[in-house]
Amino acid sequence: MSYKSYIEQSQKIADLAHIGAVLAWDQETKLPPKGANTRARQKATLSGLIHQLSTNKEYGELLQDLIEDDQLDQYQKRNVSLSLKDYRLATKFTQEFVQKKSQKISECFQAWLEARKERDFKIFQKPLEGLIDMVREEAEILGYTDHPYDAMLDLYEPDLTVDQVDQVFDPLKKDLKELISKISRAQQVNDHFLSGQFSSDKQLLFGEYILKAIGYDMEAGRQDESAHPFSISFGPGDQRVTTRVDEKNFAYMLWSTIHEGGHALYEQGLPHDQYGLPLGQAISLSIHESQSRLWENNVGRSLPFWEAHYPELQGRFPAFQDCKLQDFYRGINKIEKNKIRTEADELHYHFHVIIRYEIEREIMKGGLDVSQLRDAWNDLYASYLNVTFGHDGEGILQDVHWAHGSIGYFPTYTLGSLYAAQFFAQANQDISGLQNDLAKGNCSTLLDWLRKKVHYHGKYYSADDLCKEITGSSLDASYFMDYATKKYTEIYQL
Amino acid sequence: MSYKSYIEQSQKIADLAHIGAVLAWDQETKLPPKGANTRARQKATLSGLIHQLSTNKEYGELLQDLIEDDQLDQYQKRNVSLSLKDYRLATKFTQEFVQKKSQKISECFQAWLEARKERDFKIFQKPLEGLIDMVREEAEILGYTDHPYDAMLDLYEPDLTVDQVDQVFDPLKKDLKELISKISRAQQVNDHFLSGQFSSDKQLLFGEYILKAIGYDMEAGRQDESAHPFSISFGPGDQRVTTRVDEKNFAYMLWSTIHEGGHALYEQGLPHDQYGLPLGQAISLSIHESQSRLWENNVGRSLPFWEAHYPELQGRFPAFQDCKLQDFYRGINKIEKNKIRTEADELHYHFHVIIRYEIEREIMKGGLDVSQLRDAWNDLYASYLNVTFGHDGEGILQDVHWAHGSIGYFPTYTLGSLYAAQFFAQANQDISGLQNDLAKGNCSTLLDWLRKKVHYHGKYYSADDLCKEITGSSLDASYFMDYATKKYTEIYQL
Repeated sequence: MSYKSYIEQSQKIADLAHIGAVLAWDQETKLPPKGANTRARQKATLSGLIHQLSTNKEYGELLQDLIEDDQLDQYQKRNVSLSLKDYRLATKFTQEFVQKKSQKISECFQAWLEARKERDFKIFQKPLEGLIDMVREEAEILGYTDHPYDAMLDLYEPDLTVDQVDQVFDPLKKDLKELISKISRAQQVNDHFLSGQFSSDKQLLFGEYILKAIGYDMEAGRQDESAHPFSISFGPGDQRVTTRVDEKNFAYMLWSTIHEGGHALYEQGLPHDQYGLPLGQAISLSIHESQSRLWENNVGRSLPFWEAHYPELQGRFPAFQDCKLQDFYRGINKIEKNKIRTEADELHYHFHVIIRYEIEREIMKGGLDVSQLRDAWNDLYASYLNVTFGHDGEGILQDVHWAHGSIGYFPTYTLGSLYAAQFFAQANQDISGLQNDLAKGNCSTLLDWLRKKVHYHGKYYSADDLCKEITGSSLDASYFMDYATKKYTEIYQL
Repeated sequence: MSYKSYIEQSQKIADLAHIGAVLAWDQETKLPPKGANTRARQKATLSGLIHQLSTNKEYGELLQDLIEDDQLDQYQKRNVSLSLKDYRLATKFTQEFVQKKSQKISECFQAWLEARKERDFKIFQKPLEGLIDMVREEAEILGYTDHPYDAMLDLYEPDLTVDQVDQVFDPLKKDLKELISKISRAQQVNDHFLSGQFSSDKQLLFGEYILKAIGYDMEAGRQDESAHPFSISFGPGDQRVTTRVDEKNFAYMLWSTIHEGGHALYEQGLPHDQYGLPLGQAISLSIHESQSRLWENNVGRSLPFWEAHYPELQGRFPAFQDCKLQDFYRGINKIEKNKIRTEADELHYHFHVIIRYEIEREIMKGGLDVSQLRDAWNDLYASYLNVTFGHDGEGILQDVHWAHGSIGYFPTYTLGSLYAAQFFAQANQDISGLQNDLAKGNCSTLLDWLRKKVHYHGKYYSADDLCKEITGSSLDASYFMDYATKKYTEIYQL
């Protein structure tokens, strides 16, 4: 009886959270400019109500009773235990704090839009300072043992710490630098065919073709355009993706579509009968990112995938008719340093992430102020990537995350790629003829494997336990480096 | 201090209501099919919360205190008095009743969809009976003096009674019948130019042109497509419209765009500083409809309006190049009986409304059962319009209102046209050279007048007081008949 009541209350909270997702989706894809303030109000009011329900005393008592209930099975126990963790987290914040943060985020997001348009970080600086102050306060409220940043990392990747990230990122920096350096001395590949004139409508239709090809259910979602592509779930039966279209460059739509499609496949594969409960939710951001990266890079940038789909692409876009499949494959895997994270190749990409991680780490530690942010950014880019920016719009204003107050989010991008490589290596062992399936345009053996191994479990396992369950070991960056070294040795004939 | 608290609580309720509007808009314009159940959950959860806040005991006590507060000015008093009316209304219903009705509406709406598809009223009959029983119960709970239908009318048009409606509709029927009869004996006009092939994209762009022409602020709204056009407010700065596009018939997009645009202009003109309070809201459905009809018919179907905009239309659609302005004007004012209310001309339209009104009146009185509904419908259409239906889908199932339990809504459509004619007659007296302005493409003198006379006041006046304030007298159908007689005498050379 009380487990039933727990389900009802949890689902009510989930309903409101998904309503918040609708408001956010609309804000990023459709909202007219003058509606921004009103939307900020609505989101703040909704956040307040969610906070109220999530911290409701009777709800907490119910969870406390249930955690001591021996009648529950292991799945129910896992649900209750994770909900109790969420409850304890939520009760750390006052309603006032939550609403104030939501309001600040809305202001900050509007300022970011304006600053990006004007290419001037100064417009963003003041609102961001206010938001960062709140994030620092948040870390103190959440509590941590070693590093204030640990409190924030835990929000996106449970139990992740600065120590662990450093242990992964430091050797990765070294290994990647070596590989990139080898590549830079080799004969370069050409990707000029991605530039040209590609009508927006036709690109969007090809995006839908690709989404369907990887198994995305178009009856349980839709694709729209937004400045910064994202995927978002409105609950069972409605997982949406957005993409970005540049008529002069085919690459933006293509990679953002596959990437967000991968995220959405995860959400579409979560068990609906666990709606509103932890077992109906994704494990963590890095596992989420493992799904998008697996489809984007391990599948979407592979030769077999394009053996299946390149004829369709050539049929729809005559510009590709003069480009051979092999050249297309090499071109879409071109390694070249780039200013923009979301446009980076799969090796340089991690330096973009590491730069943001190191900045966030210092900001949270108090060693860096928002007023110094632009300089720190430019210095790190000069040092790691030998890149300089023409203006803030292409530099420090390129990502929306900080405008959303999402500090601790970036490292999960790189961890996701590492998990993806490890999972994909295992998939190739478990599924006989997988590469052959992909080359025939059949993605369903892979998707079924992911459904069974990853999606179906929701939060039953932790990220680390899932990785061990699937691959027999914890996260190990050598899978990624092996994959990358093999692939680029072949492409660049190193 | 307590007035401030009243504002805060009222605005919170308004935030949630507008969030509900976002969910509804998305459902009608974007929702993927498999997301329907999840959306229904979200709406039910939100409705429950809105009901909870609207009937909160402390909120009621606050309103009761404020109503006796002599310190309040006349505007504040009006706000509190109307909010107290809303509060008393909301508290008349138990949460159980509200949920049961919401459940019945969902069943009824699904049955209506199915019945419409199968073109068979029988599928709809049983669920509708259940819903009508609840509406009758609702009228008893709400209370009335003379007629149970009065209780329902009051929900959409405060203080409107069956007596008043009959007093307006009975002579209107007679006068309209005479005018239509004269027209039917005259030389008919041609509107073939509205049929052809008009690309959807170009129609939508022309719709935006028209919206801008009448003064709709595209930065505070947007136009999307939906099966049934509507306008909806998400709060200050975000008033959206939808339209319906038929590539073979230009008329659908054109009239739904101007009509919904007129509604949205009203919402865009409401005082933002009264957000969440009655003075920040539209008076009633008939005054809302007066705004849409004024722009659609009195302006949008007038010769001066097209003197200004016809060249633009011809430029964008070569199909109109062979059609002279005078012929276009006559054609868009073609009078011809029609089976479908939403496609009716501005004279026959009122018979469609009156038929529904007379049926609702008898149903509420108990003189008509749902089992007799189809016969009553068909008899009235035969008698008033000499129309017979091929099947129920184009007949009694054409409107969604009854499936939504909206009994009492229809009469406001005709009252809106009557108010529109009366207001427009006054506008032509108050604004020197108005017809000339319109012919020059300048709609702003009219819009400014409406802003000042109607929009700006929110609910400060009742519909009747507003009409007296603007025109010196209560609603008088002779303004509409004078307008119609003059216009159609000229067009049909009667």
